[in-house]
Amino acid sequence: MRILVVNVNTTQSITDSIGVQAAGAASRGTEIVPLTPSFGAESVEGNYESYLAAVAVMETVRAYREPFDAVIQAGYGEHGREGLQELLDVPVVDITEAAASTAQFLGRTYSVVTSLDRTVPLIEERLHAAGLSARCASVRASGLAVLDLERDGKAAVDAIVEQAAQAVETDRAEVICLGCGGMSGLTERVVERTGVPVVDGVSAAVTIAESLVRLGLTTSKVRTYAPPRSKRIVNWPPRAG
Amino acid sequence: MRILVVNVNTTQSITDSIGVQAAGAASRGTEIVPLTPSFGAESVEGNYESYLAAVAVMETVRAYREPFDAVIQAGYGEHGREGLQELLDVPVVDITEAAASTAQFLGRTYSVVTSLDRTVPLIEERLHAAGLSARCASVRASGLAVLDLERDGKAAVDAIVEQAAQAVETDRAEVICLGCGGMSGLTERVVERTGVPVVDGVSAAVTIAESLVRLGLTTSKVRTYAPPRSKRIVNWPPRAG
Amino acid sequence: MRILVVNVNTTQSITDSIGVQAAGAASRGTEIVPLTPSFGAESVEGNYESYLAAVAVMETVRAYREPFDAVIQAGYGEHGREGLQELLDVPVVDITEAAASTAQFLGRTYSVVTSLDRTVPLIEERLHAAGLSARCASVRASGLAVLDLERDGKAAVDAIVEQAAQAVETDRAEVICLGCGGMSGLTERVVERTGVPVVDGVSAAVTIAESLVRLGLTTSKVRTYAPPRSKRIVNWPPRAG
Amino acid sequence: MRILVVNVNTTQSITDSIGVQAAGAASRGTEIVPLTPSFGAESVEGNYESYLAAVAVMETVRAYREPFDAVIQAGYGEHGREGLQELLDVPVVDITEAAASTAQFLGRTYSVVTSLDRTVPLIEERLHAAGLSARCASVRASGLAVLDLERDGKAAVDAIVEQAAQAVETDRAEVICLGCGGMSGLTERVVERTGVPVVDGVSAAVTIAESLVRLGLTTSKVRTYAPPRSKRIVNWPPRAG
Amino acid sequence: MRILVVNVNTTQSITDSIGVQAAGAASRGTEIVPLTPSFGAESVEGNYESYLAAVAVMETVRAYREPFDAVIQAGYGEHGREGLQELLDVPVVDITEAAASTAQFLGRTYSVVTSLDRTVPLIEERLHAAGLSARCASVRASGLAVLDLERDGKAAVDAIVEQAAQAVETDRAEVICLGCGGMSGLTERVVERTGVPVVDGVSAAVTIAESLVRLGLTTSKVRTYAPPRSKRIVNWPPRAG
Amino acid sequence: MRILVVNVNTTQSITDSIGVQAAGAASRGTEIVPLTPSFGAESVEGNYESYLAAVAVMETVRAYREPFDAVIQAGYGEHGREGLQELLDVPVVDITEAAASTAQFLGRTYSVVTSLDRTVPLIEERLHAAGLSARCASVRASGLAVLDLERDGKAAVDAIVEQAAQAVETDRAEVICLGCGGMSGLTERVVERTGVPVVDGVSAAVTIAESLVRLGLTTSKVRTYAPPRSKRIVNWPPRAG
Repeated sequence: MRILVVNVNTTQSITDSIGVQAAGAASRGTEIVPLTPSFGAESVEGNYESYLAAVAVMETVRAYREPFDAVIQAGYGEHGREGLQELLDVPVVDITEAAASTAQFLGRTYSVVTSLDRTVPLIEERLHAAGLSARCASVRASGLAVLDLERDGKAAVDAIVEQAAQAVETDRAEVICLGCGGMSGLTERVVERTGVPVVDGVSAAVTIAESLVRLGLTTSKVRTYAPPRSKRIVNWPPRAG
Repeated sequence: MRILVVNVNTTQSITDSIGVQAAGAASRGTEIVPLTPSFGAESVEGNYESYLAAVAVMETVRAYREPFDAVIQAGYGEHGREGLQELLDVPVVDITEAAASTAQFLGRTYSVVTSLDRTVPLIEERLHAAGLSARCASVRASGLAVLDLERDGKAAVDAIVEQAAQAVETDRAEVICLGCGGMSGLTERVVERTGVPVVDGVSAAVTIAESLVRLGLTTSKVRTYAPPRSKRIVNWPPRAG
Repeated sequence: MRILVVNVNTTQSITDSIGVQAAGAASRGTEIVPLTPSFGAESVEGNYESYLAAVAVMETVRAYREPFDAVIQAGYGEHGREGLQELLDVPVVDITEAAASTAQFLGRTYSVVTSLDRTVPLIEERLHAAGLSARCASVRASGLAVLDLERDGKAAVDAIVEQAAQAVETDRAEVICLGCGGMSGLTERVVERTGVPVVDGVSAAVTIAESLVRLGLTTSKVRTYAPPRSKRIVNWPPRAG
Repeated sequence: MRILVVNVNTTQSITDSIGVQAAGAASRGTEIVPLTPSFGAESVEGNYESYLAAVAVMETVRAYREPFDAVIQAGYGEHGREGLQELLDVPVVDITEAAASTAQFLGRTYSVVTSLDRTVPLIEERLHAAGLSARCASVRASGLAVLDLERDGKAAVDAIVEQAAQAVETDRAEVICLGCGGMSGLTERVVERTGVPVVDGVSAAVTIAESLVRLGLTTSKVRTYAPPRSKRIVNWPPRAG
Repeated sequence: MRILVVNVNTTQSITDSIGVQAAGAASRGTEIVPLTPSFGAESVEGNYESYLAAVAVMETVRAYREPFDAVIQAGYGEHGREGLQELLDVPVVDITEAAASTAQFLGRTYSVVTSLDRTVPLIEERLHAAGLSARCASVRASGLAVLDLERDGKAAVDAIVEQAAQAVETDRAEVICLGCGGMSGLTERVVERTGVPVVDGVSAAVTIAESLVRLGLTTSKVRTYAPPRSKRIVNWPPRAG
Repeated sequence: MRILVVNVNTTQSITDSIGVQAAGAASRGTEIVPLTPSFGAESVEGNYESYLAAVAVMETVRAYREPFDAVIQAGYGEHGREGLQELLDVPVVDITEAAASTAQFLGRTYSVVTSLDRTVPLIEERLHAAGLSARCASVRASGLAVLDLERDGKAAVDAIVEQAAQAVETDRAEVICLGCGGMSGLTERVVERTGVPVVDGVSAAVTIAESLVRLGLTTSKVRTYAPPRSKRIVNWPPRAG
């Protein structure tokens, strides 16, 4: 089975980290194909960049020439998953939704800890769109940007661990979803500090995608995710830079 | 005052209709500037096309070189308004939201009547995102595509009038929002048949945009719609075809 | 176009302030007619007084002998708007609802800052009844009564500015609606302190009423706001004192 | 114990019926005092009349000169209960809420069957305000006015029984609340036809008022129902006609 | 009239306290029969024990050989009431629901104060299942176990009074429901400290059960609480130890 | 990895069917251990039987003497999952929740089709408790009992297929969850008739349990599912019959 794992930003090192994380969660026999969009922002932290990522991820998948069995959209709180579902029959799994869905099996409530405050509304909307917000205790931000996580690991980890602890103590979260990728050791640190299970979205998405494929399940095509109707589309996709 | 009215699809005749409708609702002294995106689908009826429209509308506004006072996104149930709000300080008004917001002043409940069934979920999500779904009695589809409205006026009008009547009688709607543009006479027909007020989104959006400008109100920049952070964006925007 | 702006209390100086505020927001050609009820409380701060205001406003409008194009009920969180809508075909706009509806175009969430804590539930119920509570981050009270605003401007302004700041910082409001009228300079002070847009209900209501009239829209008469049935009403209205 | 049972309309024969119904449900030792407002509509079927009833009921209770232990507001879906709670320390029970609260102990869901369609929204709002709408399967109208119930018993009973049956079969109601008073035999007929328990609001309210008094419970005065503040009220109450 | 009041745990002294409380609230002519289950936990503080209590209460009632008119399940936030309703035609009243339902007549919002934090989710779920959560301001825990209440009255009372005060001041509760039985003086202490009405669930349940019986109302049998179908049940009930 | 799959009723042939279904979905290396409770009803169709099943399943798992890695509760809409989670550290997966969670990845909405109408409320409550009801379009019943499925395959299949079709056409479901086990061919028939993906709860639960184990995730123990406190439990568990 081959699963495409598409990063939402154009930073290759983050794609690499996501690929490693995904491969670590995959079963034997599953091939993980990490992909970086050919256009878009180096990190996605707001609606403009997220809408751009939505179309970039779609074009990245459309441009992929080999067969594949499932697609994972590896960004936290981003737009676009519904568009991919229109374009494809194979399962599409968003990591925000994969993490929340998994967390709900482990505790009565969960919180998401993410990077910047401005991405909190995006994550909240994504959880709502997926029907997964009823048991969300809170979405909390560490105040550090995505690329800060790459640059200053220590401060970023501390800030995230602190927010996770507050989610458990103040918001009554029983599970933590980490809404920021690419850092080794983060999960362990949060588990240590809070004593609750910590779900990594990329890993969760890999197991869900594998499960859907193994069960022979595909995206419903009756209404919301019916294929785009045949029509003229002008000046799109853009020619590669 | 100058208001940009941006079509979400690339069909010039629809942009023209929207422009006429907007100009008809504008106060003296308001200049309506209708714009057609330089890329995207000839009609927008689903998530893929809608995400594409979101970025196309944003790039269309970014490419506009004159000063302006407000922007209207003239598509029903489309993605993207939040991105425009990040990019701009001036008010941004989506016609789906303008219609619903206006309808709520006229009756306890309202329904939206749109073209294809597959766009119903998009409109529902847009109303939710805008905090306007509590009094929405239903979103109903006539089953006819956007371009059918252009081609076979009579059948399209009949189908829409019929759904409007059912919204009032079955779903208890007290106001109808027409979620499909470009047809003269449609409003009158629905009023005649149902006896309830009918709100046209483009007209409503023009009066709301004018009102916000006159009151000196601009988009809040503290969190969700803060300007995009400074960062590298690769291969974007696409070079015009 | 003539718009009646009806105060909910019997204090003429507040009616005057409201009139000035309304006139400042009106387009050229719009005549603002401020009205004071002939009975009721000197300020409205609770259900008993608010129900009394509801009928007093209705009788004030019924007693008005000239033609008019719209009515604004200028009280924050008061009962009665639905009754006016039964009595009239022309648009009726409540300032609580006008402010919230306007705020929703400017930010993802809004808060209302009002005078006394006891009026908070009234405002919350009004927002719910209007279908505008989903994006309400909080309704906060300064703890100062309506008439204190008239008497001790400085302390009242400080208390309100402080609550607005907390709404933005703690409750994540992106827009502030001022739920208390009659004070010059208040809006500027709150904008300065919080950096978010501040909506004045009276001004917002004037632009909405004008817009509805210009669009030719009137109150739906099919169900909730159908005219009262013909029947015997005993000992009412009261003879003027 | 003395309980005031206040009719919301000015039709004495309806007050009499309500009084008989209340007395039939009262314990030995409870004195039922039925009261008719001195002003207002002969039947209450809409917001204008309901707001008028709200203040009329309040003035009726304020004008009552003997001690009493509780007040029942005997109208279905009417405004005003919150105002009475401000004016009084003794318990205030609205029959709409009493019926729903009682119904919830008998089945998982309940429906209300009332007279005119236009009163449906009023009842829905009242149930919401009381926190009792979550298990409400539907509010259905027979299409017959309050006074028709007095005039043509047979047709009115048939129409109500039919709506009750549809509530059970279509809306999955497990209990029926009768939102219209004054008809002997109605309860039995609905029970016979539907096989579900039928709750009469007046009777339910009497037992609830008695229970609250026996338990020594009174209205909370900390916030929403704090007594009106001392202030000048102009030209009110009206002098009796 | 005879009302069974069934304790959910197997501690006889708690059954005795409940019996005294119930008898104190009962009308003359009502016989209160306190019952202790023959199996289960000495206190119920979690799902495992609560599910066990659910079946133990049901078997206790099934084993009772005399006629009775109503059953009260005297545990806070426990499972099982729906099962009793299937088995019986007579009214079944859960004390959690009785307290909340009563509180809603006294204030706009209420809070529950209970013993251990781990029982908070159970109470929240029970209130939801009964359609009574909309006006619940909070469920707060004192941190002391059920049996601590029996052993160290002073500390337990202090902790509960403190949480009640916070519910009123922070969560805006207007009424307090005490979610823990068996302590004399507790109600008075909370009233003294907070100034709001305090509802005891056992007392409230007695008056509600009496009311339902007096009104001739019984459990609806059309769907959710239809009697169990006739079928083979293996190795159940267990032989008494 | 060893997964216990516990039937909720005492019919061995149903346990066998469930075991076959589970084994078919399991990965190589996963051992499925189907278990039948030692007490309880031969089929579970209501609250009394479901509460009994809850404790029977818990005792069945407690009595199991070998190590295991996860538990699946294989009943649709039954009580008890929360109790198992208190007793165990390893993941516990309810098939109702597994099916809904899986369905949400395949379409915007899903419906459940089950056997008897009386189990509909049980399933609705279970989905609510799991935070999975927001995207549930409907829960529909075929009107045939669990054991009828075993006895008259043809009629049962037809009735279920018909309800599934109505869920898609009338309720706008995009995915169907089959809330009744033990029938070969059912999934294929529903797919054929409706064209939407059909999720089998047992299969979905197996893949989810495997995924949680592979990711090293266990039940959160901080609050709701903390282990039962140490205390005296009387006359329990019952001695085997």
